[in-house]
Amino acid sequence: MTESTYHTLDAAGIRSLISGVPVVAGRLGGTPDLWRVHEVSDGNLNNVFIVGGPTGEVCLKQSLPYVRVDPTWKMPLDRTYFESEWLRAVRPLVGGLTTEFLHFDPVLHVLIVESLSGHTVYRSALMRGVDWPDVAPRIGTFIAHATFGTSLLALPFEDVFAARRDFARNVTLTRITLDLVFDHPYRDHPRNNWDEPELTPLVLDIRSSAPTLLAVENLRRRFLSQPQALLHGDLHTGSIMTKADDTRVIDGEFALYGPIGFDCGMFVGNLVLHYFATPDATARSATIRDIAAFWTCFHAQFLTLWNRDEAPPAGTLRPLAYGPAAHTAQLAFLEEIEADTMGFAAAEVIRRIIGYAHTADFDVIADPRQRGACRAGALAFAYYILDHTAQIRTLGDFLRHLGEQEKVGL
Amino acid sequence: MTESTYHTLDAAGIRSLISGVPVVAGRLGGTPDLWRVHEVSDGNLNNVFIVGGPTGEVCLKQSLPYVRVDPTWKMPLDRTYFESEWLRAVRPLVGGLTTEFLHFDPVLHVLIVESLSGHTVYRSALMRGVDWPDVAPRIGTFIAHATFGTSLLALPFEDVFAARRDFARNVTLTRITLDLVFDHPYRDHPRNNWDEPELTPLVLDIRSSAPTLLAVENLRRRFLSQPQALLHGDLHTGSIMTKADDTRVIDGEFALYGPIGFDCGMFVGNLVLHYFATPDATARSATIRDIAAFWTCFHAQFLTLWNRDEAPPAGTLRPLAYGPAAHTAQLAFLEEIEADTMGFAAAEVIRRIIGYAHTADFDVIADPRQRGACRAGALAFAYYILDHTAQIRTLGDFLRHLGEQEKVGL
Ligand SMILES: Nc1ncnc2c1ncn2[C@@H]1O[C@H](COP(=O)(O)OP(=O)(O)OP(=O)(O)O)[C@@H](O)[C@H]1O
Ligand SMILES: Nc1ncnc2c1ncn2[C@@H]1O[C@H](COP(=O)(O)OP(=O)(O)OP(=O)(O)O)[C@@H](O)[C@H]1O
Repeated sequence: MTESTYHTLDAAGIRSLISGVPVVAGRLGGTPDLWRVHEVSDGNLNNVFIVGGPTGEVCLKQSLPYVRVDPTWKMPLDRTYFESEWLRAVRPLVGGLTTEFLHFDPVLHVLIVESLSGHTVYRSALMRGVDWPDVAPRIGTFIAHATFGTSLLALPFEDVFAARRDFARNVTLTRITLDLVFDHPYRDHPRNNWDEPELTPLVLDIRSSAPTLLAVENLRRRFLSQPQALLHGDLHTGSIMTKADDTRVIDGEFALYGPIGFDCGMFVGNLVLHYFATPDATARSATIRDIAAFWTCFHAQFLTLWNRDEAPPAGTLRPLAYGPAAHTAQLAFLEEIEADTMGFAAAEVIRRIIGYAHTADFDVIADPRQRGACRAGALAFAYYILDHTAQIRTLGDFLRHLGEQEKVGL
Repeated sequence: MTESTYHTLDAAGIRSLISGVPVVAGRLGGTPDLWRVHEVSDGNLNNVFIVGGPTGEVCLKQSLPYVRVDPTWKMPLDRTYFESEWLRAVRPLVGGLTTEFLHFDPVLHVLIVESLSGHTVYRSALMRGVDWPDVAPRIGTFIAHATFGTSLLALPFEDVFAARRDFARNVTLTRITLDLVFDHPYRDHPRNNWDEPELTPLVLDIRSSAPTLLAVENLRRRFLSQPQALLHGDLHTGSIMTKADDTRVIDGEFALYGPIGFDCGMFVGNLVLHYFATPDATARSATIRDIAAFWTCFHAQFLTLWNRDEAPPAGTLRPLAYGPAAHTAQLAFLEEIEADTMGFAAAEVIRRIIGYAHTADFDVIADPRQRGACRAGALAFAYYILDHTAQIRTLGDFLRHLGEQEKVGL
C-alpha cells in the first residue's frame, strides 16, 4: 500500500512500495518479510538501497528534498525523474552498458533499476590500482551510441525537440553544473575550497588569465547552447560501476541536451585527476593509454553509426552531400567534439581541485606535501590546456603534454 | 458570446468575439453593429481582417486548419499561439518596432493586435521603387534588441530554457522551414518549381556541388542546434510593414530559438532578391547601401546592449573576463553571426527562386527573358556564396561581390 504523498522511505516503506509493483516484487521473489534492505548511499544527493529477496536483487534510489550530505541545501525532488527519463532513452541504444530500468514512482520520486553485483565504482577500482584496459573504450562506445542515437543525425527533429523540451526542465541540476563548474572556481566564492596553500598563487593566475577565462566563457556558452545530443551530464569515474569484463554507466540525473564533448570531457578530466593522483609511472602510462583508447573508440563508433549502410540514419540531418568532401565534414564535426572534450576536461579538473566538490582520487597519497604537489600538477596542467586552446589542437597534443607531466609530484 | 469550439470566423463571428473582449471593444468604440470588418489576407497561411469602429481599429488574425492558399495542405491551428507568444516576448524589448499585442483566444486561435495605418508591406514598397534608407537599419535595431534580450547574454538560463521549451513546440512551421529552405531545393521534389528553362543547368550544378551541399548541411544543423535567441523565423520583406518614418515587424508565427544569423540572413536574402529584380543601377546601389546599413546598425546595437554600463546584463553568460581580449571575443561572436547571415541569405535566395514559395519581387519585370536573366543572376550569386564560404568571409566581401553583379540581367 503506497501512501499518496512524498515521504522519505525506510526499510518498511520500501517493502510496502515494492509489494505494489509486480515487476519488481516478482524479481525479488518470496514475500515482503523476506526482503533485505541495505543502504548503500555514498553520493552527495540521494538515498540508495539494495533490496534483496529469495530470487533476485534490485537497486532503489530516492530523491530527498535536500542534498544528502548537506541537508541545509534544499533541492526539488525531480532528479530521479530525469534519471529515469535518461535511462529509458539511452538504455535501448547502449545495450548492456547501463542498468535495466524497472520502475519509477513519480509521487515518492523513487527509481528502481537492476542491481549490479560484483561491480565496483570505477573511481574506487582505479584508486585500488586495478588496470582494466577495456573500461575506457567501453565508455567511448557508450557515449558514441547514447549521443548519436539521441541526436538529429539519428532522429527526426520533432523527436529531438520533444526530448530537449523534457530535459530542459532539469534546471536545478543544470544550475549546479553551471555554478560549480563554470562560475565559482573563477572568482571568490564561499563554496570554493582547497587545503594546500601552494595552490593559491595558481588559482590567482587562473583568475587573471584572460585567455583562460575566455576559454571558460566559451565552454559555458557551448554547454548551454549546443544541444547536440542527450548527455549523461555527470559522467565522472564515480558514475561508472564496473568489473574487468562488464561496465555500466549509472546516475544520469544531470541529463540534459548539450555538446557531446561535455560527456567526453568529464570522463577524460576524471582520468586526468587519477593520473595526477597516481605516484607511479606505470599506472600513469596506463591512464594515458586509457584516455587514448577511449577517444579512438568513441571516434570510430560514432563514425560507424553515421555511415551505416544497412540502416541509414533516419535523422533530419541526413546527408545532402556524399563522397570525400562529406567525409571531411564528418571529421570536422568530430574535431569540434575533440576540442570540446579537452576544454571540458580541463574545466572539470579545475573545479574538482579548487571548487566545492572534490574527488577522492588524491586520498591515496598519504604525505600531505606530495598530495599538494600532485594537486598543483593537475591544476597547472588544466590551466595550461585552457590557456593554450589555440596550440593544443588534438587529443594527441593533450596527451603528449600530459605525458610530459610524468614527473610532477612523483 | 464566444462559442467554445474552433470555427472559422466570418464578420458576424468577429463582432461576437470582440464584444466579449473589453480591451479590444473599448478601442473600437460604439456598439458591434457599427464595426466594419474588412479582410486583408494576402499571405499563404491565415485569415487576416481589419476591424474598425468609431474610435479605433484593430487587426485580427485567425489560423485555419489548412494552408490558406492550398486547402488540401492540412495544418494544425497553433500558429497564432506562437505568434502571440513571440509578440509578447519581443514587444517589450523592441519599443515601437512591432505591433502592440491586444488579445489571444486559444480556442478560436485568434490573435488581435494594433492595426497599422498608412503602412505598406515593405516588399510592395520596394517593388514600387521607394527609397527609404531608414528601414533597413531599423530592422538591424529590431533584431539586435529582440535577440540580445531573449538570449543567455541578457537572461538567466532558467528563463531561456523555459522559453526554448515553449517555442520548441512550434514544430509544424519549423518543419516547413526545414523542408522548403534546407531540403527540397537540393533534390528533385514536386514542390520545387521554376518557369525559366535557363535556370535548370544552374540547379543541377548546385545539386552536384559538394561544397554547396555541405554549406547547406552546416546551415541546417546550425538552424536546429544553435538556440542562441528567440528568432522571428520568417523575417522576409513581406513580414515588415512600414512607411518612411515608422517600421514594424509582423507575423512572428515561425518563431523559434535558433541562430541569430538566421533572422539577419532572411532579411538580407530578400534584399538580395530585390536587388536582382531591379533593372536599375541606382536602386541596386541603394539596396547595397541598405544591406550595409542594416548590418552596421545590428552590429553596433548588439555590442551596445552587451556593454551597457548602467544596467549590466543579468544573463547567465555575463562576462568572466574583461579588457581587450574580452572585446575580441565579442567581435568573434558577431563574426559567427556574420557568417551565418551570409549563408542563410544565400539559402533564402535559392529557395525563393527554385523552391515552393517564390516572392513577388521579380513580377516588376515585364519581359520574360529579362526576368529569367535576373532570376538566373540571383541564383548564380547565391550559389557562388555557398560555394565559396571560405573566401567570402565578411559582409563587405559579400557586398563587393554583389556589386560586381550590377550588370546581370540589366
Ligand atoms: N544499480 C546499482 N547496483 C548496485 N549498486 C548501486 C547501483 N546504483 C548505485 N549503486 C551504489 O550506490 C551509490 C550511489 O549511487 P548514485 O551515484 O546513483 O547516487 P547519487 O546520490 O546520485 O550520487 P551523486 O551524488 O554522485 O550524484 C553508488 O556509488 C554505488 O555504490
Ligand atoms: N497589424 C496590421 N495592421 C494592418 N494590416 C496588417 C497587420 N498585420 C497584417 N496586416 C496585413 O495582412 C497581411 C497578412 O498578414 P500576415 O503576413 O501576418 O499573414 P500570414 O497569413 O501569416 O502571412 P504569411 O503566409 O506570409 O505568413 C499583411 O501582408 C498585411 O497586408
